[in-house]
Amino acid sequence: MKTHFPVDRMRAEATPFYYYDMELLDATIKAIRQYSDYPDFQVHYAVKANSNPEILRRIAASGLGADTVSIGEVKAALDAGFSAAKTVFAGVGKTDEEIAAALEYGIGCFNVESEPELFVIESIARQMGKKAPVALRVNPEIDAHTHHYITTGIAENKFGIAMSMLRRVIDSCIKSEWIDLQGLHFHIGSQVTDLTPYKILCERINRLQEEYSDIEFASINVGGGLGVDYDNPDTNPIPDFEEFFKIFHENLKLRSGQQVHFELGRAVVAQCGSLITRVVFVKEGVDKKFVILDGGMTELIRPALYQAHHKIENLTSTSPDEERYDVVGPICESSDTFGTDELLPETKRGDLVALRSAGAYGEVMASCYNCRSLPGSRFSHRFR
Amino acid sequence: MKTHFPVDRMRAEATPFYYYDMELLDATIKAIRQYSDYPDFQVHYAVKANSNPEILRRIAASGLGADTVSIGEVKAALDAGFSAAKTVFAGVGKTDEEIAAALEYGIGCFNVESEPELFVIESIARQMGKKAPVALRVNPEIDAHTHHYITTGIAENKFGIAMSMLRRVIDSCIKSEWIDLQGLHFHIGSQVTDLTPYKILCERINRLQEEYSDIEFASINVGGGLGVDYDNPDTNPIPDFEEFFKIFHENLKLRSGQQVHFELGRAVVAQCGSLITRVVFVKEGVDKKFVILDGGMTELIRPALYQAHHKIENLTSTSPDEERYDVVGPICESSDTFGTDELLPETKRGDLVALRSAGAYGEVMASCYNCRSLPGSRFSHRFR
Repeated sequence: MKTHFPVDRMRAEATPFYYYDMELLDATIKAIRQYSDYPDFQVHYAVKANSNPEILRRIAASGLGADTVSIGEVKAALDAGFSAAKTVFAGVGKTDEEIAAALEYGIGCFNVESEPELFVIESIARQMGKKAPVALRVNPEIDAHTHHYITTGIAENKFGIAMSMLRRVIDSCIKSEWIDLQGLHFHIGSQVTDLTPYKILCERINRLQEEYSDIEFASINVGGGLGVDYDNPDTNPIPDFEEFFKIFHENLKLRSGQQVHFELGRAVVAQCGSLITRVVFVKEGVDKKFVILDGGMTELIRPALYQAHHKIENLTSTSPDEERYDVVGPICESSDTFGTDELLPETKRGDLVALRSAGAYGEVMASCYNCRSLPGSRFSHRFR
Repeated sequence: MKTHFPVDRMRAEATPFYYYDMELLDATIKAIRQYSDYPDFQVHYAVKANSNPEILRRIAASGLGADTVSIGEVKAALDAGFSAAKTVFAGVGKTDEEIAAALEYGIGCFNVESEPELFVIESIARQMGKKAPVALRVNPEIDAHTHHYITTGIAENKFGIAMSMLRRVIDSCIKSEWIDLQGLHFHIGSQVTDLTPYKILCERINRLQEEYSDIEFASINVGGGLGVDYDNPDTNPIPDFEEFFKIFHENLKLRSGQQVHFELGRAVVAQCGSLITRVVFVKEGVDKKFVILDGGMTELIRPALYQAHHKIENLTSTSPDEERYDVVGPICESSDTFGTDELLPETKRGDLVALRSAGAYGEVMASCYNCRSLPGSRFSHRFR
């Protein structure tokens, strides 16, 4: 399903803004529910990908759980209608205040990233007289072959507990009357498009379950990381959830009654969002032409931060001629560039340009750098 | 002058926050005024480096002008007490609304980055019946040998007008009754520590002035870019302004009555600011120890965005023992790392850690990613 841009309505709007195709979001959620319909599969939405209240409400209403990484995200999730019991709180640097607030809310599970964190949670739980549900994040030492910045599953980084230390941490959980060990948590990386690493993850988990056959794990959280097709948002608007969930169904050896948790962020929301910008100037250099947009790295930082590329679409040009342009933002930094030598229909001042697949890690990472305002958001169902 | 951190007072504060050493800021401004005290030298502060109102007011009160890159920055500068006449408005993507508002404010000068921008300014000036003061930003094609992201002076990027096109654009200015051509503007890059490129810039400008001896330029804006010593903030708290201004004084051949404008940002504010964070956990991995802070890339993005390194200082440890740590933030991204194998005194949960030289491009680039709150700011003169 190709995203439809209501261009005539958009012309009247102040740019830049995020546009969300809510029909695509609904279809994506529907696909997730359909293909994850195995016994004991439970899907959580990773709030960090997009915490726009309207988006969160839509996802919460569909029945998914929430994966959060700060007390601010916990609050945003609860406000949007996610239940506390289906909300997981992850992150390597949970502060005491955050832990106490999450316990107060009755959070479903803390994903614990280190032994000192476990001890702090235990001590706060004891003080509050509330047993803390925890899953231990294990570093499965699998390299998902993605950008080194967003690979979080390889050995010795800030995330998770090394496999060699796991027994000791599990023992600490079991000895404590204030910790309720619910299971294990894994996460191999981000923007994973070759699904092979997930098979390896399943094997790794199976081996761990054998090794720890003496320990009861009510749930196994396999994390997320499923990527999207940034180059072809219209031909691949919905990731291959069928194949993704099938891999776990076929390869994960679950114990009787064990639940599997998934944490999908980018795969849920990336394709439904676009940053809509207006062309301020088309500048002809000596060898190059520059399309200068009114939206930049302040609204969408992924190109500057991760050298990511978002498909660039001129929504309003009717010219049959194509030209090569460098497409840049207005910020006074060379890193504020969306594309080099992009082939676009002849582009003019005033044209509307969409930066596609910007629904994940777009609006949430916006800043007011250069004293700019945060971008607004518009939704397809309110745009008619 | 070594920055003094009032550690006992800081312990009571919620972290993370930016701490500004206002005595150092004052001393820095004093040095700028002292060493720029040549006839017709006028220094502007580049607001984009730090637009904290308290910082802006202090700089405005010293008599410097303001260099801005958005109407938001223009407003922030005027609110802080900079005069409109001494405020310059630069940037490649000024929108029509921004241009009109700046004309209304009586902006001192538009630094024009392209021919189409000039035509738009002219058309708006005509409609408003106000003559627009402009300087043309010329791309001097000098590589300041800095990080490719923040080098803005080499050929064919989004900034400035190519030298080969300059005559045509100057002619357009002169022909127009709504444009007041004030001069030329240059900017060779950012975090420049070897001052040689500035000598080359002076020669380039001298040649251009000869080539355009028929054109009157009331001012030459040589930009900024002077770097700071990120490795040694205490031994080099104030950049070598003496040498910097001397280069222009000795090498720039000015015409009679011509003014020189400078735009300094980082050099003014970087060293006076630190991001103060608290250690949430010290996590022992298999081969590495991790210091996990409560401040991260959401508060200070330069390490993630530019692979920049800020000196890391444990403000509270009294241990004589030193250890190697990876120092990381709490954000769920591998890029959220401040240092690898950093040698620090033995560091414990609860210690206060300063990320030094964070006064420029720190607070202004903060975001609410992960639903975090923006960092607050504290000032040395209010901290006693």
